[in-house]
Amino acid sequence: MSYITQKKIANSCKNLIVTTSVDDVNVTEIMKNIHMRRQTFYNFFLDKYDAIVWIYDDELTEIIDDNLDYEKWQNIIKLLCKYFFNNRLFFQKVLHHATQVDLAHKTIEKYFQNLIQSVFNDKDCHLESERLTFNIEFLADSLLVQLDSWISADNPRSIEKEVTLLTSLLEDTIVGFNINHK
Amino acid sequence: MSYITQKKIANSCKNLIVTTSVDDVNVTEIMKNIHMRRQTFYNFFLDKYDAIVWIYDDELTEIIDDNLDYEKWQNIIKLLCKYFFNNRLFFQKVLHHATQVDLAHKTIEKYFQNLIQSVFNDKDCHLESERLTFNIEFLADSLLVQLDSWISADNPRSIEKEVTLLTSLLEDTIVGFNINHK
Repeated sequence: MSYITQKKIANSCKNLIVTTSVDDVNVTEIMKNIHMRRQTFYNFFLDKYDAIVWIYDDELTEIIDDNLDYEKWQNIIKLLCKYFFNNRLFFQKVLHHATQVDLAHKTIEKYFQNLIQSVFNDKDCHLESERLTFNIEFLADSLLVQLDSWISADNPRSIEKEVTLLTSLLEDTIVGFNINHK
Repeated sequence: MSYITQKKIANSCKNLIVTTSVDDVNVTEIMKNIHMRRQTFYNFFLDKYDAIVWIYDDELTEIIDDNLDYEKWQNIIKLLCKYFFNNRLFFQKVLHHATQVDLAHKTIEKYFQNLIQSVFNDKDCHLESERLTFNIEFLADSLLVQLDSWISADNPRSIEKEVTLLTSLLEDTIVGFNINHK
């Protein structure tokens, strides 16, 4: 039961951020909207920022980590693009909030690194470890910047188009790494 | 003479940012430190933020645009890494300043896109235009994120190492684009 309650509180926090802003959200409102006691919030989270990080962890685990063993990375990219697009109002606010930017990036990038690692594994890429780590971090960071700039654009391209462009770029990139490091 | 004066004012602004912070810098201090009348500042800039953007434009034109026709892109990457490393205190502050982040990124990325374009030209890369634009923007954004995370690290790797890793990554990436799009 406790995961369901936690998720309910987190969703209320997320909905409030979308309709107002990170700064305007407070615990009283979060709990009032789901008819729960204010104090219950603190059984699960330290504060609203803690709840926001939990949202990243919960949702990206579901989309990325839980799928890594079962889905092709191309399909995970598709799920990820859909997720970012459908949650674009939320991400526009949390990824640009003055004091939360670094924490958001740090949390999200862990998941993106797992995803990029699986792209490298898929293509059987043999880079020595320092370069492999550098390239994975570079591409994981880049993926987040790209998704952010996509959903923040005035006229964002379609999900389908974004998936095609991103997948081609990653496929081509890995081919290049492989050619040069057989 | 006016460019020299403008540069002198901009440098004073930059030095103050390094020793204090973007928020703490004011026009009075900027001009006092170079023994010039406060009012002269406004012959050149609207405000300190305008001066900061001018610094990006002035210095990146010198490092990137002025060199594009004469230097190999690998050498420009080297100059750029040196420049970011030597100005790391400045960039740490301006690239993480709450209200200036987007403007900084937008201004700097124009130059980085010119640089990445020249990497593509060098390798004679034939991508159709939508993918070419996407890939150039993706890599230009990524380059800035990477330089920022490098200079912000607790123990940043050496300039030489960073240059090697970045250059290899870009070379491999372009090889991949070329293989798949002859």
